[in-house]
Amino acid sequence: MEFNLDNALALLARTPSVLTALLRDLPDAWTTCNEGDNTWTPKDVVAHYLYTEQVNWIPRARHILEHGDGQPFPPFKRSGHLAESEPKSLANLLDEFAAARSASIAELRSWKLGPADLERRGQHPALGPTTLSQLLAAWTVHDLTHLHQLTRVLALQYAEAVGPFKKFLGVLHCAGHSAPA
Amino acid sequence: MEFNLDNALALLARTPSVLTALLRDLPDAWTTCNEGDNTWTPKDVVAHYLYTEQVNWIPRARHILEHGDGQPFPPFKRSGHLAESEPKSLANLLDEFAAARSASIAELRSWKLGPADLERRGQHPALGPTTLSQLLAAWTVHDLTHLHQLTRVLALQYAEAVGPFKKFLGVLHCAGHSAPA
Repeated sequence: MEFNLDNALALLARTPSVLTALLRDLPDAWTTCNEGDNTWTPKDVVAHYLYTEQVNWIPRARHILEHGDGQPFPPFKRSGHLAESEPKSLANLLDEFAAARSASIAELRSWKLGPADLERRGQHPALGPTTLSQLLAAWTVHDLTHLHQLTRVLALQYAEAVGPFKKFLGVLHCAGHSAPA
Repeated sequence: MEFNLDNALALLARTPSVLTALLRDLPDAWTTCNEGDNTWTPKDVVAHYLYTEQVNWIPRARHILEHGDGQPFPPFKRSGHLAESEPKSLANLLDEFAAARSASIAELRSWKLGPADLERRGQHPALGPTTLSQLLAAWTVHDLTHLHQLTRVLALQYAEAVGPFKKFLGVLHCAGHSAPA
């Protein structure tokens, strides 16, 4: 499927509601569990959505529009959200993410991007040449990657409790696939 | 983590809202896509949630309470939802699933299950001996398995559009893990 800005925005706009529906007021047993040492809890994942919203997606899109591929995107610290996560409640992180996402989408819409804009080129510090449409598609899939991760983290807590059903429950056979962007 | 009925219900109760937040009124480009021949669209997945709600989870729990492991669970047709999916709109399927889940939870609560009930044994036609708590844990993880699948189906549509970002987007490296229960 080709990138389509309206379709991408339709998904991006609803991620805060999806996270709220899945996690808000869920018992702590679920929201503070993880997959073992140095893995993220659901709360950490929400903090990561918030942090990347602030430092990654719209800032990089703006960077492409302002600088093209003349200078690479500023570096981005993958674990930068962990400092944010610690002192805040999950409800607080969900609220802040919803507000930040809403502002991101309003800014993106205000640019009134046309097809030529979407082909503008940027330079990723690790991945090399990219286009604005690839960045925006990646933003959309990044939302889905972390929702994918959330289902895995939650499900893992019942890996033993399901007993013989484990065989038929695909999410319990997901070992994770890569580091997030 | 040990199975805990209240915690499991906290997740089970919110799945309809999660699906609604993710899928209702989403452009058809997303809700009618799949992963290739003989794979499910997001709409098919919602139909599967509805179908399994009607024929699988609560009926099997009731079967354990009524028959123990004296007779195996009645068979369950994995593709049984496809006939349901065809004539109904996604909005309709989401509404029906929300109503069915709500009724399931009300029935489960009405049983006032205690620890001894949760250890009652049943007989799965393919997996052999199981307990009521394993069945209920599997129901919870089944919700997460299909949410896991939904993120993968949606993300796949942008596998090309993300260009070089694919490397960092874990969900695009998920090939699926098993047949659903």
